[in-house]
Amino acid sequence: MDNESVYNKLGVSTEKEDVERALEKTKIEELYLGSFCKMLPDPLDSDYALCLHEDGAGSKSVQAYIHWKETGDPAVFKGISQDAAVMNTDDMLCIGATNFVIADTIARNSKNVSGEVISEVILGFSDFCKKISAFDTKVSFAGGETADLNDQTGTIIVDATAFSRMRKENVINGSEVAPGDFIVGISSNGKATYEECENSGIGSNGLTLARNCLMKRDYLSKYPEISCQDTSNPALYSGKFAFDDFEDSLGMNVGEAILSPTRTYLPVVSEALKKMHPEISAIVHVTGGGQAKTAKVGKGIEYVKNNLFEPSPIFKLIQQESGESWRDMHRDFNMGHRMEIIVKTKDAVEQITSICEKFNIQARQIGFCRKSLTGKNKVIVESQFGKFEYE
Amino acid sequence: MDNESVYNKLGVSTEKEDVERALEKTKIEELYLGSFCKMLPDPLDSDYALCLHEDGAGSKSVQAYIHWKETGDPAVFKGISQDAAVMNTDDMLCIGATNFVIADTIARNSKNVSGEVISEVILGFSDFCKKISAFDTKVSFAGGETADLNDQTGTIIVDATAFSRMRKENVINGSEVAPGDFIVGISSNGKATYEECENSGIGSNGLTLARNCLMKRDYLSKYPEISCQDTSNPALYSGKFAFDDFEDSLGMNVGEAILSPTRTYLPVVSEALKKMHPEISAIVHVTGGGQAKTAKVGKGIEYVKNNLFEPSPIFKLIQQESGESWRDMHRDFNMGHRMEIIVKTKDAVEQITSICEKFNIQARQIGFCRKSLTGKNKVIVESQFGKFEYE
Repeated sequence: MDNESVYNKLGVSTEKEDVERALEKTKIEELYLGSFCKMLPDPLDSDYALCLHEDGAGSKSVQAYIHWKETGDPAVFKGISQDAAVMNTDDMLCIGATNFVIADTIARNSKNVSGEVISEVILGFSDFCKKISAFDTKVSFAGGETADLNDQTGTIIVDATAFSRMRKENVINGSEVAPGDFIVGISSNGKATYEECENSGIGSNGLTLARNCLMKRDYLSKYPEISCQDTSNPALYSGKFAFDDFEDSLGMNVGEAILSPTRTYLPVVSEALKKMHPEISAIVHVTGGGQAKTAKVGKGIEYVKNNLFEPSPIFKLIQQESGESWRDMHRDFNMGHRMEIIVKTKDAVEQITSICEKFNIQARQIGFCRKSLTGKNKVIVESQFGKFEYE
Repeated sequence: MDNESVYNKLGVSTEKEDVERALEKTKIEELYLGSFCKMLPDPLDSDYALCLHEDGAGSKSVQAYIHWKETGDPAVFKGISQDAAVMNTDDMLCIGATNFVIADTIARNSKNVSGEVISEVILGFSDFCKKISAFDTKVSFAGGETADLNDQTGTIIVDATAFSRMRKENVINGSEVAPGDFIVGISSNGKATYEECENSGIGSNGLTLARNCLMKRDYLSKYPEISCQDTSNPALYSGKFAFDDFEDSLGMNVGEAILSPTRTYLPVVSEALKKMHPEISAIVHVTGGGQAKTAKVGKGIEYVKNNLFEPSPIFKLIQQESGESWRDMHRDFNMGHRMEIIVKTKDAVEQITSICEKFNIQARQIGFCRKSLTGKNKVIVESQFGKFEYE
């Protein structure tokens, strides 16, 4: 294998240098440097900060498309709405937001994706907002926009936007992370009390790699619309599995594991924020960038992760089938926990694990913070697969 | 020609019945029925209403892609950002909003669309916000999300989100439209004082039809990524023009006319709102649905449009080349004015035309309101091309 990651060969630039460079040139009136999401001043009231955030289900909707084409059941797309919603809400949990307005943006090929699919996507957003509002949080659905873009997509892209307005004094802005802080990881797999079935833990990142290394080539000839790439690329749909192949190590079908709706940590984190806000230094949503994401918050900190969970079975399977290096695996995927709370005391670690236990979610101290000697944030993963450093 | 519109043959469902049906089943806590944009209660303050809105540049970015590939100049994508931004801001002008936070969502094929393009898109948003904030309005840019979705798109999709929070007493909610009201149309073409070049008036709707009926087939063989449709469809890129062919009737190149950045009416409408809010019954952004869009606001009103502007040359050219019926042309495109202000008095009509004149934009009374005998809103276009009714 050459040095290029398998994921990059599939056209996904995990490090997003281009985007970072462009953003550097723009003038965003950001209130806090080092906060997990960008926050702007409320033009009408200086005591408040605003956050307008976007993200989507990424290429997970292509897997849902295959599932729908094979089974005829469009309900699978409700999970895609949850994916898109949670990619926003759980990012914004990291600044301490627990009240949201959510809207959707759907682009579809109208010849391939029928109205019943769009209906499930929209209902999926509405259901998610309703369900999660039963906890100590308020999520309103504002509707959205569906565009027929048949020249631009063969299938469907589902994005969402979330908005929150907060008193500045409640914002977790990343400035409090200090050497000696504890990193608590909250598991991404299993079955939380508020989930309907077992979750593989995959979330909504790394899906281009997951789909292409696991799903078999047949789907590409059967549904050529599932890729806009040069189909001579051998990395495309190079897997050995059908969507409904049961895999012992996963305890579920491979397709189901890829489609597990992204877990929201809203019930857990909103309780933690209510009970122990002053003890929380930062919150990190482990998404694009995987375990390296933590380097985004705070200033001059080395995040040492020396007690990670055993990788969830889905990640082991992806590594085995793709041959992606373990270093890149930890940057492409969450690997076992998709939410981190960085706290000031050992006692706070225990408070969080006990809140999580109530919801039947595993949590534990997975690492600690120390001063970075270079002054730059750094993540050091010390795992059974080796030691990996990310900046 | 059979009865199916040319636009539908290209896979665009102009009437969006699917989406309407799905939205009917969701529970959106809308404050006002009949307002142009959905407004939600502010959970923190009952005197305020919130609006979270999404829309995008649609398939106009495919034309920008062709232009960029042919010329090597990525700056053309700045206009695409303006398209996406204005599709949001100018929708929200219709509820009386003049302060916005804007964020972007970009999906690209990273093999085909380089970082320099993404950079121009992001800078385009930032520049637009800065430029328009010089007027009586405040638009902040919040950044956004760029996703590499190589299996889902061959080119690029640019969407935007806008947020506004308003005192309820300032919201224009559509309830005031009454028989006897005057409809003022504000021209979509020409060169406003705040525009850098002549605008064809096309906006961001109907672009799939415009591109495909005007641009020649060669582009499809040269850049197969510009369509995810079945390429045996004869309606695809069936035109006779190269992007840089000068067309006398347009006074510009055909490609430039297709790419004219969507005019924002922010400077004009924010001034009208400031000076004459009580005389305004409703504001209508003539986008998807074209001249039929007006039926979306108010209750039990027939909107009679019997004095429309002469269609802008770009629309005449599209009709001539595509053979689309004039009835459908008026539903696919704005045809000459993309903003309507519905006012209570003749004097208000004159106030608006004089504000527009200051900005070098034509405006005039294009119709009037009368009671709908069926109780349902209706638009009646009485034009030189015939009489068309829409519900």
